[in-house]
Amino acid sequence: MKTENDLYGHFFSEELKKVELRISKLFKKEHPDSLYEPCSYIIKSGGKRLRPLLVILCAKAVGGDIKNVYNAAVAVELLHNFTLVHDDIMDNADKRRGRTTLHKKYDLSTAILSGDSLLAFAYVNLLKDTMENDKSVLSSFTKGVVEVCEGQSLDKEFETNDKVTIDDYLIMIKKKTAALLEMCCSIGAQLGGGSVQKQNALAKYGRNMGMAFQLQDDLLDIIAEEAEFGKVIGGDLVEGKKTFLFLNALEKAKGKDKILLKSVIKNKGIKKEEVSKFRELFYKLGVIEDTEKEIIRYTKLALKETKVIESEIDRNMLVWLASSLIKRNK
Amino acid sequence: MKTENDLYGHFFSEELKKVELRISKLFKKEHPDSLYEPCSYIIKSGGKRLRPLLVILCAKAVGGDIKNVYNAAVAVELLHNFTLVHDDIMDNADKRRGRTTLHKKYDLSTAILSGDSLLAFAYVNLLKDTMENDKSVLSSFTKGVVEVCEGQSLDKEFETNDKVTIDDYLIMIKKKTAALLEMCCSIGAQLGGGSVQKQNALAKYGRNMGMAFQLQDDLLDIIAEEAEFGKVIGGDLVEGKKTFLFLNALEKAKGKDKILLKSVIKNKGIKKEEVSKFRELFYKLGVIEDTEKEIIRYTKLALKETKVIESEIDRNMLVWLASSLIKRNK
Repeated sequence: MKTENDLYGHFFSEELKKVELRISKLFKKEHPDSLYEPCSYIIKSGGKRLRPLLVILCAKAVGGDIKNVYNAAVAVELLHNFTLVHDDIMDNADKRRGRTTLHKKYDLSTAILSGDSLLAFAYVNLLKDTMENDKSVLSSFTKGVVEVCEGQSLDKEFETNDKVTIDDYLIMIKKKTAALLEMCCSIGAQLGGGSVQKQNALAKYGRNMGMAFQLQDDLLDIIAEEAEFGKVIGGDLVEGKKTFLFLNALEKAKGKDKILLKSVIKNKGIKKEEVSKFRELFYKLGVIEDTEKEIIRYTKLALKETKVIESEIDRNMLVWLASSLIKRNK
Repeated sequence: MKTENDLYGHFFSEELKKVELRISKLFKKEHPDSLYEPCSYIIKSGGKRLRPLLVILCAKAVGGDIKNVYNAAVAVELLHNFTLVHDDIMDNADKRRGRTTLHKKYDLSTAILSGDSLLAFAYVNLLKDTMENDKSVLSSFTKGVVEVCEGQSLDKEFETNDKVTIDDYLIMIKKKTAALLEMCCSIGAQLGGGSVQKQNALAKYGRNMGMAFQLQDDLLDIIAEEAEFGKVIGGDLVEGKKTFLFLNALEKAKGKDKILLKSVIKNKGIKKEEVSKFRELFYKLGVIEDTEKEIIRYTKLALKETKVIESEIDRNMLVWLASSLIKRNK
């Protein structure tokens, strides 16, 4: 007998295939190649495709026909990839999804312009799925673009700001990560013809899931197994990033521990060899436990919102997705 | 008695004031400052504001109420400024409108992100003016964004492509410059409630005017008076840009002249001191005259399209604007 896990997993993998097929066809007929070959390179480099799945799942949850939201699903993935390309330039990153980043493989100009085109094509695709609800869907989408830029700006600002608080950090990830997942759920619900009540509930579901998702990312950076994670463990600490864990530790630490943590800010990072020392300190200060609790708190807030969905199977799928995200190890 | 020139000039300067007022209020309430202060810096650095005026003029020409298109007028200026910020990074430009470029005044990350936000706010503003014609206006606008990226990509490609033809060049400026002016006229006519026939005619008016505008830019680079032009004369030649004039000269030249022109491509530019020598060569080859003829040809094509406008004063204003652009000296 099939378990719920199998059923939901099957639905997601089938939908994922449809999204991938559409993504594989993007830019095929577009010219010049100097612009669209790099666009293809990044959008076809994999990724969880969480954002398109949220659009589809939320459209389904409000009783909409998911056939009508695949272009919108592709649009949010294009938007996501636009942010990745430009963020990688700003972070001077070498690798993305195990492949060379766009600005390293090509050049700076190509990466800037490809990012811009990915955003433009996000609108091109979104406009294919909007009907009489154009304005509201496009406004939600555009609000997502505005917020993601603001979030990235705050993130860059924090690099040189020594007074960042936990609240500042939460505002930043709300804009940089949660706003986009919120938007995906909102436009899915709108395109699916859901009531305003359901649109709002699913938007909150997405936002809270986004908060949990980002905190989980911060946590995995320090406690994941390197082989599974696919990234260097402790990378955030090495780069001196002021994550939820770090800011929490800084607030709780006293004496020598506090001096040690302050030195991370002063030195703008630590050496790779020091990661395990800091991991132990984080465990000692209860920061790992605090973060796990916070992830569960946000996930519960997300799950609460699913109550508005009448269909048990759709509601369970939303629950399943949110729960599986916090169980991930990469 | 007031001349037509005074009347039209007065209309444009009054409309310009209204546009400037709206532009001055943009980003005032937005945070973070690290993102929106740079956005303000570029959008308030002046410029001809030709694109907003085209939106307003075309809305008026089809009998629309221009009160309803000011947000759209601001949107096209935001879009234009997005392209300037990103193009200046790609061209490694130091100055724009006599001021330090964004990436030089701030840094690369700020400039990339500010450009992105300018584009996002273009959509925010455009959405304020769209009504039941959302989809068509937004599609035209988005098509403009796509084309301007493609045009810039071709422009960058031409830097290292030694086989660029005059036709290649015309396709490039059609996308990079003319597509945006076409879009301004098209969305003005759409928002003003004009018929499809008028929308198409005004779009063609904008496109042909855009072609004339860019060729005039190329021409001014070599024949303008430095004091009025505000830029170094012959800058395109110094940078080795394959402009309409250069490609035309290359096609017409023979013997020693041809060898000299080919050396510009090989050396990726010329010395400042050599500009007058090349200017004389361009005159000798008839390239200056050819370009002037081409500008007049495109302007006439633009003017032909104004016939669909019934109101004599509106029609004359469109004619006046197109004519005044080719008389400009900067």
